[in-house]
Amino acid sequence: MAASSLLRSLTRHARGGSAHPIHKPWSPFSTTTAAAAAASGARRDEASKGFPGLGPTAKGEKARVVVLGTGWAGSRLMKDLDTGGYDVVCVAPRNHMVFTPLLASTCVGTLEFRSVAEPLARIQPAVSKSPGSYFLLARCTGVDPDAHTIDCETVTDGEKDTLEPWKFKVAYDKLVFACGAEASTFGIHGVTEHAIFLREVHHAQEIRRRLLLNLMLSDVPGLSEEEKRRLLHCVVVGGGPTGVEFSGELSDFIIRDVKQRYSHVKDYIHVTLIESGVRLVQGIVKDVQPNKLILDNGEEVPYGLLVWSTGVGASPFVKSLPFPKSPGGRIGIDEWLRVPSVRDVYAIGDCSGFLESTGKDVLPALAQVAERQGKYLASQLNRVMKAGGGHADSEAEADPGPPFVYKHLGSMATVGRYKALVDLRQSKVR
Amino acid sequence: MAASSLLRSLTRHARGGSAHPIHKPWSPFSTTTAAAAAASGARRDEASKGFPGLGPTAKGEKARVVVLGTGWAGSRLMKDLDTGGYDVVCVAPRNHMVFTPLLASTCVGTLEFRSVAEPLARIQPAVSKSPGSYFLLARCTGVDPDAHTIDCETVTDGEKDTLEPWKFKVAYDKLVFACGAEASTFGIHGVTEHAIFLREVHHAQEIRRRLLLNLMLSDVPGLSEEEKRRLLHCVVVGGGPTGVEFSGELSDFIIRDVKQRYSHVKDYIHVTLIESGVRLVQGIVKDVQPNKLILDNGEEVPYGLLVWSTGVGASPFVKSLPFPKSPGGRIGIDEWLRVPSVRDVYAIGDCSGFLESTGKDVLPALAQVAERQGKYLASQLNRVMKAGGGHADSEAEADPGPPFVYKHLGSMATVGRYKALVDLRQSKVR
Repeated sequence: MAASSLLRSLTRHARGGSAHPIHKPWSPFSTTTAAAAAASGARRDEASKGFPGLGPTAKGEKARVVVLGTGWAGSRLMKDLDTGGYDVVCVAPRNHMVFTPLLASTCVGTLEFRSVAEPLARIQPAVSKSPGSYFLLARCTGVDPDAHTIDCETVTDGEKDTLEPWKFKVAYDKLVFACGAEASTFGIHGVTEHAIFLREVHHAQEIRRRLLLNLMLSDVPGLSEEEKRRLLHCVVVGGGPTGVEFSGELSDFIIRDVKQRYSHVKDYIHVTLIESGVRLVQGIVKDVQPNKLILDNGEEVPYGLLVWSTGVGASPFVKSLPFPKSPGGRIGIDEWLRVPSVRDVYAIGDCSGFLESTGKDVLPALAQVAERQGKYLASQLNRVMKAGGGHADSEAEADPGPPFVYKHLGSMATVGRYKALVDLRQSKVR
Repeated sequence: MAASSLLRSLTRHARGGSAHPIHKPWSPFSTTTAAAAAASGARRDEASKGFPGLGPTAKGEKARVVVLGTGWAGSRLMKDLDTGGYDVVCVAPRNHMVFTPLLASTCVGTLEFRSVAEPLARIQPAVSKSPGSYFLLARCTGVDPDAHTIDCETVTDGEKDTLEPWKFKVAYDKLVFACGAEASTFGIHGVTEHAIFLREVHHAQEIRRRLLLNLMLSDVPGLSEEEKRRLLHCVVVGGGPTGVEFSGELSDFIIRDVKQRYSHVKDYIHVTLIESGVRLVQGIVKDVQPNKLILDNGEEVPYGLLVWSTGVGASPFVKSLPFPKSPGGRIGIDEWLRVPSVRDVYAIGDCSGFLESTGKDVLPALAQVAERQGKYLASQLNRVMKAGGGHADSEAEADPGPPFVYKHLGSMATVGRYKALVDLRQSKVR
């Protein structure tokens, strides 16, 4: 979990001036306080009640929508869900949404990290306040569509001394997969170990840290010319929007900042963009080693920073799910974004794709697709709930309403200094 | 190296609107460009010239002041050094100064990390611009006062794929130790492994991350009451200004933020301050284990976050130096902040202390002592340089000028919500 993202939820506003004690002396060995007992009693999920996690809702209670993911699709869905009729339980390894189109700008300081991350608790406040709604920092590890439950395990990302990985179940009335895709490595050796992706805030932080560390290290006396040039060689693999935007930001950074602030080494820094189509550098990446990559023609490209942005594919979790898949291996959905083989299960965003049987093309892995699917599904689920079909297996089979229709509004990529490339063609689907 | 601190040097301002290419195609295999060759030629430190690092300055060149450290003492010194007559070379594992009195406020989001860190390049711009001045991200590992050189090794803090640890020497005309002290653990087992100190920006980041992680994890269904209470028990060991300020901030955070934003678990969070003098919890810490600490009376105190702020002592590096020490093991100095056994060597801030032979007490490890020593020494060195004594072994033995005199102006500790404790007694020295 990236620090800055967690921290977003902590930003504090102007404070009043009334007095309060520095601290409240407290014995860690005291028995449960009345307040704590009450809070715990309000929870319907106690392990002691026989269900190791959040048990099924009763008919008189709100129905529970379980959403897996806090990306464009899941966040937009949760924002619009009617919490008057639904409890919202979000299970995800990240407690915030990332405004991905601006992520590249944070790598060189044009934007601050917190400017591109929004805590889920701000998008849908119910998860931190409503008695039956939660954000759970965990990964879903499996699903049982017949029992209407999922298996989960807490995520601590190697943070020691916190909590041993904790497994629990969550029963759902409606389940929405919005768990996204994974960066593609095309099976090239060394990519995962040595390259940095650009999909999360912690990736951008790592790029920024590495870039500055290399700028400082290259100033150390006695380093060879080759080593200085290697340290300050930034290689970007992938000529899609992310790669182009990051290269543009980096170029800006070199022109505007490095020349002024790192003038000792300003002539050593360079950016190379490798794209298997355009080939700004001839060749296709064959192997990635700690300080150099090898092209298919045998050429070696030394680097100090390697950013990998060659698009996304289905994640191992998506591949493991027992549902029919769309072309490309995503969770197969019908035109109402339902997983048709089971009840009460939906999939939206990059993890989902129209089944071949729908006759529709799989939509591109774009924020605008995910965002509109989230919006559409929220209105569908709200409609179903108001019609009395919010709980598991209670949805009437009648009219499913209008299907989801995607209209592409064009694409845009910033290239630094207030310039952008725009593609206004209406069809993104080949 | 903490991310946010590195990042401070990257903050960008409003930018103009002129066009520029996205990137400059460049072959990593090209030979040295003319500009790079010129830059390299301007450097007097090439390994090829026989000295593995920055060699001695010549009489016609500026003299070189080497400063070890970027804390209160070193930063203030470098700020005031006359770069018309001196090259400034700073060797330190951290490229920024930390405004330590406000560090506690960053742990809970009252302040942003970047608000308490200032890059050295802003304090003394010569290190990033002047041809003979540098900031070198490295640790000093040894000193040869006769040869007027120090041994250094680059710091990469476990960042993989950057640069193998690189060793080099730096010759000095004047050498200033400003390398601070280390957090004291009193040899208590487990402190280094399980507690978090509060001296650097990355410590505050770790505290903030851990606090939020524990708040989220405590919301996971099925956790026992004891485990929830353990996760949200924040223990602070040490009742000095840092411990009190952090406890105050934490208390504010619980009262103002947790109650609103983590209302599910608000009754489980508590702060305990352990101080061997005041004993807000009875006992002295005997052992620290991953999830609990053991007091000397055998009592066990479970915790989710443990902050250790019991003061500082001499670092292993300072202990290893071949100079007479002050009481308490710091580098012994005379009343002009000189290390009297050798020429051209000084020590300021927490790493230094008056020798017993001066008849003066060792000054407390406070920012106001360090800051005033840095200011005093800069004026001394500037005066020496103007009198023609800037280079090694060239200082006239005549009048050393006025000695350093410390006047204590009082102490202050914030306790949250615009309140503070103030001690205006003029004598801090017992």
